[in-house]
Amino acid sequence: MEYLSVNHALRCVLESVKKQPEIETVRLEQALGRVLAEEVYANRDQPPYDVSAMDGYALRSADLSCIPVTLTIVEDIKAGDMPTKCIQAGQCARIMTGAPVPQGADAVLRVEDTQSAGEDLVQINTPVNAGNDIRRLGENMRDGELVLRAGTEITPGVVGILATAKCARLQVTRRPRVAILSTGDELEDMDDPVDPNKIPNSNSYALMAQVQALGIEPTLLGIARDDPAELAEYLQRGLHFDVLLVSGGSSVGLHDHVRPTLENLGVNMLFWRVAMKPGHPLAFGTTARTAVFGLPGNPVSSMVCFAEFVAPALRQMMGHTHLHRRTISARLTHDVKHKPGRTEFIRVNLAQDEHGYSATSTGTQSSGVSLSMARAEGLLVVSSASNGLPAGEQVAVQLLDGTAFQNEIGFRA
Amino acid sequence: MEYLSVNHALRCVLESVKKQPEIETVRLEQALGRVLAEEVYANRDQPPYDVSAMDGYALRSADLSCIPVTLTIVEDIKAGDMPTKCIQAGQCARIMTGAPVPQGADAVLRVEDTQSAGEDLVQINTPVNAGNDIRRLGENMRDGELVLRAGTEITPGVVGILATAKCARLQVTRRPRVAILSTGDELEDMDDPVDPNKIPNSNSYALMAQVQALGIEPTLLGIARDDPAELAEYLQRGLHFDVLLVSGGSSVGLHDHVRPTLENLGVNMLFWRVAMKPGHPLAFGTTARTAVFGLPGNPVSSMVCFAEFVAPALRQMMGHTHLHRRTISARLTHDVKHKPGRTEFIRVNLAQDEHGYSATSTGTQSSGVSLSMARAEGLLVVSSASNGLPAGEQVAVQLLDGTAFQNEIGFRA
Repeated sequence: MEYLSVNHALRCVLESVKKQPEIETVRLEQALGRVLAEEVYANRDQPPYDVSAMDGYALRSADLSCIPVTLTIVEDIKAGDMPTKCIQAGQCARIMTGAPVPQGADAVLRVEDTQSAGEDLVQINTPVNAGNDIRRLGENMRDGELVLRAGTEITPGVVGILATAKCARLQVTRRPRVAILSTGDELEDMDDPVDPNKIPNSNSYALMAQVQALGIEPTLLGIARDDPAELAEYLQRGLHFDVLLVSGGSSVGLHDHVRPTLENLGVNMLFWRVAMKPGHPLAFGTTARTAVFGLPGNPVSSMVCFAEFVAPALRQMMGHTHLHRRTISARLTHDVKHKPGRTEFIRVNLAQDEHGYSATSTGTQSSGVSLSMARAEGLLVVSSASNGLPAGEQVAVQLLDGTAFQNEIGFRA
Repeated sequence: MEYLSVNHALRCVLESVKKQPEIETVRLEQALGRVLAEEVYANRDQPPYDVSAMDGYALRSADLSCIPVTLTIVEDIKAGDMPTKCIQAGQCARIMTGAPVPQGADAVLRVEDTQSAGEDLVQINTPVNAGNDIRRLGENMRDGELVLRAGTEITPGVVGILATAKCARLQVTRRPRVAILSTGDELEDMDDPVDPNKIPNSNSYALMAQVQALGIEPTLLGIARDDPAELAEYLQRGLHFDVLLVSGGSSVGLHDHVRPTLENLGVNMLFWRVAMKPGHPLAFGTTARTAVFGLPGNPVSSMVCFAEFVAPALRQMMGHTHLHRRTISARLTHDVKHKPGRTEFIRVNLAQDEHGYSATSTGTQSSGVSLSMARAEGLLVVSSASNGLPAGEQVAVQLLDGTAFQNEIGFRA
C-alpha cells in the first residue's frame, strides 16, 4: 500500500465517522462545551419595553435645544419598576440602567453629563439626539424568534442565551464513547514496579488527557501483551465503543499483530500508512459501530496523530463544525531542513512582538523526545512538497493544548 | 473617583490576588488543566539503552561502503527483548521500533529501504551514516533529572511525562472557590414562571460557564433582592469564598447598594469605575480572605469584564503564568469609529485567507445585544487613545472561548 497524504487520510477519516445520531438531555450546569441538538426560541421580547442603557435621566430631547437647561425630576424609575408618569416639557425622570423609559421621554442622558441643581432639579449641559442611550423593545430578541440553531457549540455566551430562554435542561448530541488500549510486551504499567529495561505506559495517559481536553472521559482498557489471543480479546472489548484508540503494534513489523487481528475481528482497514513525520505508522479502520485508530507506539508520534486525525474525528462525532486546531501565522526564526515526501509537524515555541508571532523549534525533533512535546506551544506544519524553509518565512503553526492563554496582555489599552 | 484605565485596573487586580498557597493531591486522571505544585524527577534513563527508531535492520554502517550489499540476518529483536548476539561484519539483525540496538551495530536502516534476498538474507541499496535511526540512551530523560518544575500547567503532553515518571498521584495548586451572586428586583430566576416584564437571570449562568471554562466549578448563591438587609446577608455568605462575583448593583445609581454594603462588611474597595466600553461600572475590592468583583448587570458588559479582569485573576490564583486570552493580529474589514477616552472591546467574527486573519464586527455593539456575544469569535481591542480605525488596519483581537478550533485545516499538507 502507498503512503497516503495527510489531506487524503484526513478526508478518509472524516468521511467515515458520522455525527452521533443519539441525543441526550443535560442540565444547563453541565452544558458547557456540548453541541445543542434542538432549536431554541425566545420566550419573550427582550428587553420587554424600551429601557435605559445608562444610569441617568429620561427626558425629551427637544427640551435641550438651548442648553444649559434645568429640568424638573418628576419620578425615580429603577429596573423592575413601571413608570407612573408621562414626561412633559421641562420634566425628566431619574432612571436606572435597565429601567423602562417613561412615556413622553425620547432619550436618556447619563448621570455623568448632568449636575444637581437643588432638590428635584437637574441641570443639563449636553444636547442629545432622540433615542440616545435607549435600548429598544426586542433589541436583543423577539418573542418566538429562533435564537440558537441545533448544532451550536455551547460556549459561555451561549449558556447566557440559554438561561435567558430559561432552558434549565436541554438536548445535546451524545458524546462518543472512547476506549484506549496500549499494546506491547515492553510496556510497564502504572502500578508495576520500576524496571529500567521496560518502557512506562505513558501513551494511554497522554491519549486519555487528549480525549479529556475535548470534553470526553475515555475508558482505559489497559495493556494487551504481544500474544495474539490476548490481543484479540482486548480488541474485541474495544469494539464495543464508538471509538477505539490502539497505541502501538500497527506498523509493518513481524510482531505487529494489531492490523491482522483487527481484520480478523471484522474491521475494514482503510489505511495504515500516512506520509507524515512524526507518526507515519497510523492505521484507520471501521466497523458498523466503531472507528478504530492504530496509533504509533512512539509517544510524540501518537500525540501528533491524535491532534491531526483523532481530535477532528471526535469533534465531528460530537457535532462540532470547527474540527481543526486553530492555526496562526508565525515568522520562522531559523532555517528548517526538509526533503519532499512527507508532511512534517515540528514542535515549536512561540513569541510575540509588534510584528506578530515568531516560531522557534523546541530543539531536537527526535520523536523519542516526548519532553519537547510537553513543552511545545505549537506544531509548525511543513508541506510535503517543501524543500526546506528559510529563516524569516511566514509559516502556519497549529496551537497546541494549553495555548488558549498567553502571558502578555497582547493589546494597548 | 476618576475612571481607571484598563491597564491600571488590571494591575490593581493582579497585585491584589495571590496564587493559592494550599496544595492538594489529585490522581493523574484528574490532573489535566491543573498546575503542578511539586518538582518531578525522572526515575530512569529513557530510553534505557540505545534503541531503534524504526522497524528495519541494525547493521554496521561500514558494511555499506559498496552497495548494493547483501547481509545475513542473525537475529530478530523486538521491543522488550534483549539482543543475544554481537553483529559481525556482513551481518545484521532484524529490529523493531523501540528494541535495543545489538552490540556491533552502529546504525539502523528502515525496512522500506531494503529488499528480501531469500531466507535470512537482506539486500541493502542505500548507505547510512553511523547513528542513523538510533535513539540514544537517555535521549528523552536521564535518571534523576528534573523533568517538570512546580508551576507547570498540566497539558496532555505533561500528563504523558507524568505517566512516564509514574506519578499516579501528584500535588497541584488548590483551585479558588468561587461564588456568584446576582442582585436586583427585576430579575426572574430560572425556576420562576415567565413574567415578560422581568429580566431572566442570565448573568449567573453565563458567569458560571465562564468560571467552568477555567476548570473551576462555582457555587451559585442565587438572587439578592434590592433590600439592604437581604443583600448584606447574601454578600456575607459570599465572603466565605476565595472569590465573590456580584452581578449588578455596583454602579453609582441611587439603588445600587452593593458597594456601600460591601464596605460595611469590611471589604476594602479599590476601584469602581474603569474607562472601558462595554463594562465601565466594574468594582473591585478585597478582604483578607476574599477578592470581590462587582460586575455590571448588563450581560455583555459582565462577560467582557470577566474575560478581561476576573479570568486573569482566577488563572493567577490557580498558579498559571499565562493569564490573558490569546491575541492574534487581524485586518479590519471596515472602519471603526471611536472617541478617545475608553478602551473599547468590539465583538468580531474572524475569517482566514492567505494574508492571515480578518476581523468584522458582529453588527450592533449595543451592550444589550447578548446574542452577538454568544456569536462572536473574538474581541477587537480599540485603544483608549484611538480616534478610530480605518478599514485595512491590523488590529489585536482576543480569541474568545470556543475558538481553540477552526473549521478549515489551516495549512497545506
